[in-house]
Amino acid sequence: LQIADIRITPIAISDPPLLNSVGLHAPYALRLITEIVSDDGIVGISEIPGGVKNETGLRQAAAFFDGHDPFDFNRLTAILDGAFTAADDKRGTNPWDQRLKKHVMSALEVACYDLIGKATGKRVAELLGGVVRERVPYAGYLFFKYAGAGGALGFGMDADATGWPAARQREAVTPEGIVAQAEALIDAYGFPSLKLKGGALDPEIEVGAMEALHKRFGPKMPLRFDPNAVWTMETALAAGKRMKGFLEYYEDPVRGQAAMAEVGKALGIPMATNMCTTSFDDLPESIRLHSEDVILSDHHFWGGFRPCLALAALCRVFGRGLSMHSNSHLGVSLMAMTHLAAATPNLTYDLDTHYPWQSEEIAAGGAIRFDEGHVRLPDAPGLGVELDPVQLASLHRQYLMAGLQERDDETEMRKLHPEFRAALVRY
Amino acid sequence: LQIADIRITPIAISDPPLLNSVGLHAPYALRLITEIVSDDGIVGISEIPGGVKNETGLRQAAAFFDGHDPFDFNRLTAILDGAFTAADDKRGTNPWDQRLKKHVMSALEVACYDLIGKATGKRVAELLGGVVRERVPYAGYLFFKYAGAGGALGFGMDADATGWPAARQREAVTPEGIVAQAEALIDAYGFPSLKLKGGALDPEIEVGAMEALHKRFGPKMPLRFDPNAVWTMETALAAGKRMKGFLEYYEDPVRGQAAMAEVGKALGIPMATNMCTTSFDDLPESIRLHSEDVILSDHHFWGGFRPCLALAALCRVFGRGLSMHSNSHLGVSLMAMTHLAAATPNLTYDLDTHYPWQSEEIAAGGAIRFDEGHVRLPDAPGLGVELDPVQLASLHRQYLMAGLQERDDETEMRKLHPEFRAALVRY
Repeated sequence: LQIADIRITPIAISDPPLLNSVGLHAPYALRLITEIVSDDGIVGISEIPGGVKNETGLRQAAAFFDGHDPFDFNRLTAILDGAFTAADDKRGTNPWDQRLKKHVMSALEVACYDLIGKATGKRVAELLGGVVRERVPYAGYLFFKYAGAGGALGFGMDADATGWPAARQREAVTPEGIVAQAEALIDAYGFPSLKLKGGALDPEIEVGAMEALHKRFGPKMPLRFDPNAVWTMETALAAGKRMKGFLEYYEDPVRGQAAMAEVGKALGIPMATNMCTTSFDDLPESIRLHSEDVILSDHHFWGGFRPCLALAALCRVFGRGLSMHSNSHLGVSLMAMTHLAAATPNLTYDLDTHYPWQSEEIAAGGAIRFDEGHVRLPDAPGLGVELDPVQLASLHRQYLMAGLQERDDETEMRKLHPEFRAALVRY
Repeated sequence: LQIADIRITPIAISDPPLLNSVGLHAPYALRLITEIVSDDGIVGISEIPGGVKNETGLRQAAAFFDGHDPFDFNRLTAILDGAFTAADDKRGTNPWDQRLKKHVMSALEVACYDLIGKATGKRVAELLGGVVRERVPYAGYLFFKYAGAGGALGFGMDADATGWPAARQREAVTPEGIVAQAEALIDAYGFPSLKLKGGALDPEIEVGAMEALHKRFGPKMPLRFDPNAVWTMETALAAGKRMKGFLEYYEDPVRGQAAMAEVGKALGIPMATNMCTTSFDDLPESIRLHSEDVILSDHHFWGGFRPCLALAALCRVFGRGLSMHSNSHLGVSLMAMTHLAAATPNLTYDLDTHYPWQSEEIAAGGAIRFDEGHVRLPDAPGLGVELDPVQLASLHRQYLMAGLQERDDETEMRKLHPEFRAALVRY
């Protein structure tokens, strides 16, 4: 089993105008689809965040893997360590991670696992140590948003034209709007928990939305809140006190491990992060300071499944909880997340997913089904998901037409609010 | 690929009268050979320390694995977590680990990997992440010892009868004896580094032996010393000062993480352990105290390959070195150690091995060859070693005749020195 060819296809997927701490989702989100073809014609696939930087890096790296044994993850790591510099592995200050090397590693590693699974007749979760849960639970991911479904319609709103559920096209910039959004997501997907992305509007509105969710869904509904580290210590403490009674965890209210530790100590509620402890290099100081109680892994940002399993082992050893982060993604990423979670005994929190916000799919058979908020592990070998070549080509054409280079939520927001500036501290 | 049968064979192997902190090696060391047979007739093998406790536990556990998928390591772990109690997972104070659950897990996990390797045509190191070194270096393991080859000859010495090298039958209870032993081992195996097991004789003799080794082999020969934690702080500090200039690492001079940290801080030399930090539960305090710089893994004691790889990840994250511990063992354990080391990028120290002290072998083809102190990874799938059924049966008969229940170096020593008592602190 050797790698004979690696195909990389950039795609653009319609993305609704979701608000976050650094601006607004553009009408399209960019993804990269990798297909690794073995010498005997088996194809392994993966999906990572797109953009010119990731695509260029992935294409450059792919050139090294002709004849590579897909089982040889140590060689994969060594090659990428040699191909990229430390400068290619910097996270940046955005809510999403920008480590080029980790993204490339993830694209190749996950596709290799899919390939190995198909070659050996095993599901990826079985290759990762065994299935501890056949159904993986997800949290409903709530966003403040402007009206519209994204894509070619931009900020417009035209349920008939998109065919996308009207409830998800609606504006949500108030507590009532968020509650309505939550009702719609739960109605469609059955999510057993909810997360609200904050840092976008006045904290009074955001905390008000959390209180409204608690009031609407009661104490049995786990609620999370994540303002992506743009709050001051003062705001974080005041808001945390109001939400303390019902928060499952408090995700990145402030920036940096020391500040996170301070909030956690002051409030005595579980702190979570995908911004202050986001790599193995961050872990010693995280442990020393106890900067968070729950780490959100993400196989796209940590370099694939194997690093995420190592992170899981670390979390077990040091008594940290483990959850999972998401960005706008399609079904290949969703299934990769599902396999990883299915094979991680101590991944006990419902996973984040943007999936309900996407209206297109490249997976053969269309949108992945959720049952009571859970995704069932497929029976087929590998990731258990195949590409629909027609849809892949269509979303590639959409990429070429969209003309986007990199994700830039700040620029997108300025189209509507020219005065907007992303800042490390906003409220 | 399902488990159809598990065969467990206790064996006794001739073991020479090696001295350590708790006494003397008995004429036989006990090992357990596990053969896992799949539904399509493939056999995966492993070797762990023997004794009635391990054999009983392993047989009890084996009953749970009829029809088990050898890939499902999470289920393996869950079953063993359910089958054994915390009391079955206590290390004890001896130099060797006595965790029943970990031994059982290791026996089953390693045999499953061998099975998977044979079923998929991959070498075990390839299944563990990929081969980073085709040749794995070992250290020459020196012991104070009484004359003799062990086995049926007991403490006697009869080179002609045993066919075992006369140089290894000789007594070694002085610095000169240890130097001669080192010369013999290096001559036969080409070891690139040396380790002396201490804690057995007066520290003056032991430190003298280390100084003599340094004088004989010069500054380019890495030297390690390990008195198995029976030294006082005073002895450890005084001896450490004398050896500071040439020690590669100082292994367990004193007992417990706090004392180890104190010695390391006082001397400023690399500290190593397989006694104070020996499980994941020990790691948080180890990190907090910096109780050692190098952790000696051992797949028999940590529950198999996967835990050792998780330990390796932890060592990388927290800047700890990684080496490997050994007990009296045959070729199946040697090859398992070799595969694990071959797949662990940050296992950068030469591995410990008792292998030169064994005169029998169950591996088909006889004794594993060392080349310049290195063992080459075999080309065959799985561990690359097969059992010799005639030798296995012969060493099983030897087990039945030897009548030993458990390793008990203290009792063995009392046969020669009735006044001997094993103690937590000796010198």
